[in-house]
Amino acid sequence: MPRRPTLSEIVEARSRIAPHFARTPLVKLDLGFSDRQIFLKLETLSPIGAFKLRPALNSLMSRDPADLSNGVAVTSSGNMAYGMAWAARFIGVPMVAYMYRGAPQTKIDGVRALGGEVRFITQETWWDYIVGAERPAAPELLINPVTDQAVLAGNGSIGMEIIEDLPDVDVVLTPFGGGSMTTGVASAVKAGSRPIRVYAVEDSSAAPVSAALDAGKIVTIETRPSFIKSIGAPSLVPQLWPVVRDLIDGAIAVSPAEVTDAMRLLFRKAKVVAEGAGAASLAAAIARPDLKGNIVCVISGGNIDAAAYSTVLGGGIPSA
Amino acid sequence: MPRRPTLSEIVEARSRIAPHFARTPLVKLDLGFSDRQIFLKLETLSPIGAFKLRPALNSLMSRDPADLSNGVAVTSSGNMAYGMAWAARFIGVPMVAYMYRGAPQTKIDGVRALGGEVRFITQETWWDYIVGAERPAAPELLINPVTDQAVLAGNGSIGMEIIEDLPDVDVVLTPFGGGSMTTGVASAVKAGSRPIRVYAVEDSSAAPVSAALDAGKIVTIETRPSFIKSIGAPSLVPQLWPVVRDLIDGAIAVSPAEVTDAMRLLFRKAKVVAEGAGAASLAAAIARPDLKGNIVCVISGGNIDAAAYSTVLGGGIPSA
Repeated sequence: MPRRPTLSEIVEARSRIAPHFARTPLVKLDLGFSDRQIFLKLETLSPIGAFKLRPALNSLMSRDPADLSNGVAVTSSGNMAYGMAWAARFIGVPMVAYMYRGAPQTKIDGVRALGGEVRFITQETWWDYIVGAERPAAPELLINPVTDQAVLAGNGSIGMEIIEDLPDVDVVLTPFGGGSMTTGVASAVKAGSRPIRVYAVEDSSAAPVSAALDAGKIVTIETRPSFIKSIGAPSLVPQLWPVVRDLIDGAIAVSPAEVTDAMRLLFRKAKVVAEGAGAASLAAAIARPDLKGNIVCVISGGNIDAAAYSTVLGGGIPSA
Repeated sequence: MPRRPTLSEIVEARSRIAPHFARTPLVKLDLGFSDRQIFLKLETLSPIGAFKLRPALNSLMSRDPADLSNGVAVTSSGNMAYGMAWAARFIGVPMVAYMYRGAPQTKIDGVRALGGEVRFITQETWWDYIVGAERPAAPELLINPVTDQAVLAGNGSIGMEIIEDLPDVDVVLTPFGGGSMTTGVASAVKAGSRPIRVYAVEDSSAAPVSAALDAGKIVTIETRPSFIKSIGAPSLVPQLWPVVRDLIDGAIAVSPAEVTDAMRLLFRKAKVVAEGAGAASLAAAIARPDLKGNIVCVISGGNIDAAAYSTVLGGGIPSA
């Protein structure tokens, strides 16, 4: 069962992965608010355009090489596959991604360009692999993108860098997909004595964290189709939920319209291309003026197709 | 007359301005070339979306405050006005920008949003102000965006950071507008013992540096309208040209089609919004496979209107 990664596990993960890509910057986004200052942690600037290189690299580099002799596999809606393809090529092992049809083409292309093999599965099978109800009959080592302990520690490196760059941070907003990023970041920023609040940000089209917090337990929710990928599932991964629940200070659901507003703001004021999930944290900061002080939005990724992005710039909401 | 800024002037400029905005990152852009590695110095991540905050801030903060008692003025096609508006608000003095109609609306809006006043002049008057043939009958201290010594030293801070982040850099590609950035960067990177080549990158629609190097003297060239702003003038600023000429290793002219290709690549692979001038340096790196080793492209800015950017993403070239 996954557990909250310790600070020393996170420190170790960071030393392992940091030499292999440039540190992502924390930049101020001046929106003229007098009672809160927004900062962006730009994971879009990772070599794969999203934070997932961190957990992928840590999960491979911390493994016994013998375990990787048949290659590595991962279940992913896109960015984790992309990160794992990069990491596998880096250490020189074959890589397979189990993805479902409908994942953004830019991410599928990214995996293939890095030499990864994409095997398409249904979204149901994909979910079964993630919650551990089923596994592929294939020899590659399957690394769980949500519950693997090295994944959580790798994601924690984001939180560590936030604290180093902005010791007086008050709030961190993290897009919530499977919950591994929220868990990793919260574990890092809550390791010190400063009371730092961490929120899970989700798409109002599919908001299982808000529903679970309301119900006091995991519930299966109705979801609506949305252009926002990588976050929003019909339910939560049961193994990780108790860890998440103990760490977070709440959930914030933002609408696709609020997310596209945030994407346009990132274009105009920060010159940063964000995908929907990537901009959701900024949308949450804007939607919640009751959050004060130094607010860090983790801009988790920018892998979006040009046509969808043009729709956003034109004031629209891309089709799901 | 302007002269090459010394390393100590550049170091001083950097210490003066660096505390006021986040360091811009140098990120690798992996294009799979075996004999050269491209790095991007992302000046797009400056608070004003372009490198011009550096020279603006240094030129104001190094002045005797008494000289600024009537406010400050600058002549600019856009980004320098934006930078000066930010810097003037920061130190608390009124600011005026002399701009010509046709400058990108996003930059005009940026100046006004920061409390700056925009005074429109013809492009001819604008050029006369820059080369010092004429000056406005107004009390504000006019700071020359091209030849002011503090502007050159402020721009040098870009070069200093490149050397710190990548000591074994071989080539630096800089978009050439008035030449102050090329001068500043070259002064910094050529201060050490390593032979580092610096090139001026220009738009083939208006390429006065290439023409001057061919002719052995400043010549007035024919220009064609281009969507690429901030670089490309019918001639060179005579005061700065001798300094530039002594420093640079050559000029590279790239076409608007090559520049839009580079903009799309920056969208797809780096999640960075670049304006035409900003992407020109990357276009030059791609156009010149004879340049080997570690190549840094200064991505100078990202201030482009959404409609023009969508045109680029759709495969087109925006109208001039």
